[in-house]
Amino acid sequence: VHEAAAPVDLTSLKRIKRELVAPPFVHEHEQIAPGGPRIVEFEMKIIEKEIEVDRGAYLQGMTFDGSIPGPMMVVHEGDYVELTLINPPENMLQHNIDFHAATGALGGGALTLVNPGEKTVLRFKATRPGTFVYHCAPGGPMIPWHVASGMAGTIMVLPREGLSDHNGDPVKYDRVYYIGENEFYIPKDENGDYIRYEDVGESYPDTLEVMNGLIPSHVVFNGKVGALTGENAMKAKQGEKVLFVHSQANRDTRPHLIGGHGDLVWEAGKFNNVPDRDLETWFIRGGSAGAALYEFLQPGVYAYVNHNLIEAVNLGATAHVVVEGEWNNDLMEQVVAPTEYSGA
Amino acid sequence: VHEAAAPVDLTSLKRIKRELVAPPFVHEHEQIAPGGPRIVEFEMKIIEKEIEVDRGAYLQGMTFDGSIPGPMMVVHEGDYVELTLINPPENMLQHNIDFHAATGALGGGALTLVNPGEKTVLRFKATRPGTFVYHCAPGGPMIPWHVASGMAGTIMVLPREGLSDHNGDPVKYDRVYYIGENEFYIPKDENGDYIRYEDVGESYPDTLEVMNGLIPSHVVFNGKVGALTGENAMKAKQGEKVLFVHSQANRDTRPHLIGGHGDLVWEAGKFNNVPDRDLETWFIRGGSAGAALYEFLQPGVYAYVNHNLIEAVNLGATAHVVVEGEWNNDLMEQVVAPTEYSGA
Amino acid sequence: VHEAAAPVDLTSLKRIKRELVAPPFVHEHEQIAPGGPRIVEFEMKIIEKEIEVDRGAYLQGMTFDGSIPGPMMVVHEGDYVELTLINPPENMLQHNIDFHAATGALGGGALTLVNPGEKTVLRFKATRPGTFVYHCAPGGPMIPWHVASGMAGTIMVLPREGLSDHNGDPVKYDRVYYIGENEFYIPKDENGDYIRYEDVGESYPDTLEVMNGLIPSHVVFNGKVGALTGENAMKAKQGEKVLFVHSQANRDTRPHLIGGHGDLVWEAGKFNNVPDRDLETWFIRGGSAGAALYEFLQPGVYAYVNHNLIEAVNLGATAHVVVEGEWNNDLMEQVVAPTEYSGA
Ligand SMILES: [Cu+2]
Ligand SMILES: [Cu+2]
Ligand SMILES: [Cu+2]
Ligand SMILES: [Cu+2]
Ligand SMILES: [Cu+2]
Ligand SMILES: [Cu+2]
Ligand SMILES: [Mg+2]
Ligand SMILES: [Mg+2]
Ligand SMILES: [Mg+2]
Ligand SMILES: [Mg+2]
Ligand SMILES: [Mg+2]
Ligand SMILES: [Mg+2]
Ligand SMILES: [Mg+2]
Ligand SMILES: [Mg+2]
Ligand SMILES: [Mg+2]
Repeated sequence: VHEAAAPVDLTSLKRIKRELVAPPFVHEHEQIAPGGPRIVEFEMKIIEKEIEVDRGAYLQGMTFDGSIPGPMMVVHEGDYVELTLINPPENMLQHNIDFHAATGALGGGALTLVNPGEKTVLRFKATRPGTFVYHCAPGGPMIPWHVASGMAGTIMVLPREGLSDHNGDPVKYDRVYYIGENEFYIPKDENGDYIRYEDVGESYPDTLEVMNGLIPSHVVFNGKVGALTGENAMKAKQGEKVLFVHSQANRDTRPHLIGGHGDLVWEAGKFNNVPDRDLETWFIRGGSAGAALYEFLQPGVYAYVNHNLIEAVNLGATAHVVVEGEWNNDLMEQVVAPTEYSGA
Repeated sequence: VHEAAAPVDLTSLKRIKRELVAPPFVHEHEQIAPGGPRIVEFEMKIIEKEIEVDRGAYLQGMTFDGSIPGPMMVVHEGDYVELTLINPPENMLQHNIDFHAATGALGGGALTLVNPGEKTVLRFKATRPGTFVYHCAPGGPMIPWHVASGMAGTIMVLPREGLSDHNGDPVKYDRVYYIGENEFYIPKDENGDYIRYEDVGESYPDTLEVMNGLIPSHVVFNGKVGALTGENAMKAKQGEKVLFVHSQANRDTRPHLIGGHGDLVWEAGKFNNVPDRDLETWFIRGGSAGAALYEFLQPGVYAYVNHNLIEAVNLGATAHVVVEGEWNNDLMEQVVAPTEYSGA
Repeated sequence: VHEAAAPVDLTSLKRIKRELVAPPFVHEHEQIAPGGPRIVEFEMKIIEKEIEVDRGAYLQGMTFDGSIPGPMMVVHEGDYVELTLINPPENMLQHNIDFHAATGALGGGALTLVNPGEKTVLRFKATRPGTFVYHCAPGGPMIPWHVASGMAGTIMVLPREGLSDHNGDPVKYDRVYYIGENEFYIPKDENGDYIRYEDVGESYPDTLEVMNGLIPSHVVFNGKVGALTGENAMKAKQGEKVLFVHSQANRDTRPHLIGGHGDLVWEAGKFNNVPDRDLETWFIRGGSAGAALYEFLQPGVYAYVNHNLIEAVNLGATAHVVVEGEWNNDLMEQVVAPTEYSGA
């Protein structure tokens, strides 16, 4: 239907190829754009695979580039994103990609439907600064199923001059972490044990029934319980400003850093808006990505949670941040350690 | 209790009578008020009727003026809304109306309780600009039941000078659509089939039980699955600015336009606040109406969804917008169509 | 791990001791700080006790100072909060306190774990103005359980100069009420009757199972159905500005005042941000406290609800505000009382 579209000549633009890395890490990038708009090239391979999301709980997962969430991309406002999307022959299903950052054609979904053994290349212009979800959306009931199986990630479109605070003054981050939250709907048998399926197709009918009840069996960060705790905890140093990008492609969530705050929070993730300050908890609308900047002021192990504490602790949505530094007694002091109390 | 209230003389004000139309359409109105405050007259008839909300799923519906949602009313800040509310004799139940835009008397609910075969007239002053829910609230457990049966709509109170953007500059819309989202709680029998009831009274006990479990059977736009798709899709032209007003009188939702954005979004719906820009997804608090303005930049069929994709696709909350125009390859291009891929 | 922390000398600061009072009331306090920063002393005793949250529905409750929610504390930005936390010997469980307003050590949770028969003293500096949740967080699955059993409250950190409106102009409240919303997960037996347990320990396994299903049996304000209605209704006078502080430590909610509005709403509760105006319904992210200021313009009985009306009416989340004054017919008038209607 679009064959008469006017051609566009981008041959004068510089190209740069970015190697994607698995979350919570983010590929190398400049916060302030080093020059004019570029075409930024990415490549992602879709991988269907079984994943043990909690002990004894197996998901027939679907992934962008092997990770849940898919890798985070970073470009600047005015850049062009050029993605090569590969559906290898060993997969069973058709997939595509819908970028919330893009304009038209179902976010690119209508132009990127690839069968197993196919690849395609999509280019779009990143016209709006912010953090935006991308996800698979191959049509009909495949859409929620593929998303609930793990096919979602985030692109961050930075303002060319970098981020700015509530006064419009520039602000830089020392580190950035990408937390992708997913909820899974893993069916149980009549004994209450999770069912393990032979393949993704076999898992569909039961999974659909659980999904339609809207109550997940698991709510996790980065694909499985414990993906960001213990040895996998995020790290920071006192005095560093850390940008936490948080996405949830399907269901609302409310990130909270226990013992910390959001100094500057773009709750809806869009950098043309004035960030909120001092937040205890921020809200990610299902189908969006938001960003929170925090300067760590105390050392210690912080828990970063979805502050529905049932979802955080019992269903899995907990990460850790290990922060080095020196304790500041002015901010907090244990004046009297727990000691005997013998009645009023 | 209010018999000593001071009378008010509005005889000097002009009156105008508006004919309400069924959503997603909105009655004729001026965006900028053509003069001083007026008394704007509306009339709504409450209609109880069975509705097939999805194939084989029947709701014992309750409606304002025959539609779910009820029709959208438009006035300007400072105008007086004068509503004649009719409960025809063929209905079974008592109803009323609570305007979130109004001040006092439970939003008018305390002054408008009408039995079958009664009518009443309520007048209130629209003092705050924004989009506001109205709904039936006849007391006790009737309140959630009537709302969950369809009795809710929206009034838009425009600033007298019309809308303004994040800079305070005036902005006009070329079209306005009203999407009312409802969730239904239709009971199933022991075989998992939806139960069809003789009348609204018979449906109550089972429906109450499903409602209290908080998981709906259906989540729909404009009263039924497919009310705004196919032949009923909304329409627009490239370059047009469309205002989407979205209400949910009971349960949170998160509208998203696939392949589009919210250029200016009044998420909580109140026009005295600075609108957010560039949103991918916006959040409608249960019991409120919000507004999002978007200029369509590409042609095509857009899906407008509640971005809990299970609710959108499997439970029904999907609409379409068909947009005419010419494809812009600068914004997006299919660089390489899906083609064979024979391994890494 | 923090033994090398530099000491801090606060001996020059004035101390003031505040007596906490049960919600919805708030202890005596100044809106504008009367001088420089002070150390504000509070004491709370943790009390485990059975509570009848609705007729025939018994919660094995856990409380700060005997009330659900725990009492609201008020200090000013820059003040130091010094809390003595007591776990009396008659309790069964270990508890602690995590202040969202504090910085480091899991909000103080890591420094305040007290066994039955112990007490501790924590001091932290209130560096960010706003309303913030505090709650028990004794580790692992105890966290959601203790919160869902009632252990949460709010501290309000006022700007030293008091609140200011959307223009930055000072604004004062005539009254403040604190509404703490909780959802409970009380198990039922095979007949659908609520199970009453011998003690808190016995209640845990069944409660955990209900909690993990994410659907509460009760959603209430101030600890039980009817805690703020009838004789316990809040009171106000026409023309008074009332600040409603609303917390939910675990689950999202959406307060609404039927027949009223939020004139100035700090939805996320943090006073460095510009308040929203004219809201019909505002959203409290699970794990946060927000604040809404309203000047009552009409007399009458207002319902203050969580505007998921099922949760409000059927599950319990309804309060009342009784307002004295004279009816204003300009704002609203019953033009024609309900009267016979004999057909179209
Ligand atoms: Cu897919
Ligand atoms: Cu999407
Ligand atoms: Cu009704
Ligand atoms: Cu309402
Ligand atoms: Cu506790
Ligand atoms: Cu917390
Ligand atoms: Mg790669
Ligand atoms: Mg900016
Ligand atoms: Mg800071
Ligand atoms: Mg009519
Ligand atoms: Mg305006
Ligand atoms: Mg635009
Ligand atoms: Mg005390
Ligand atoms: Mg301020
Ligand atoms: Mg007012």
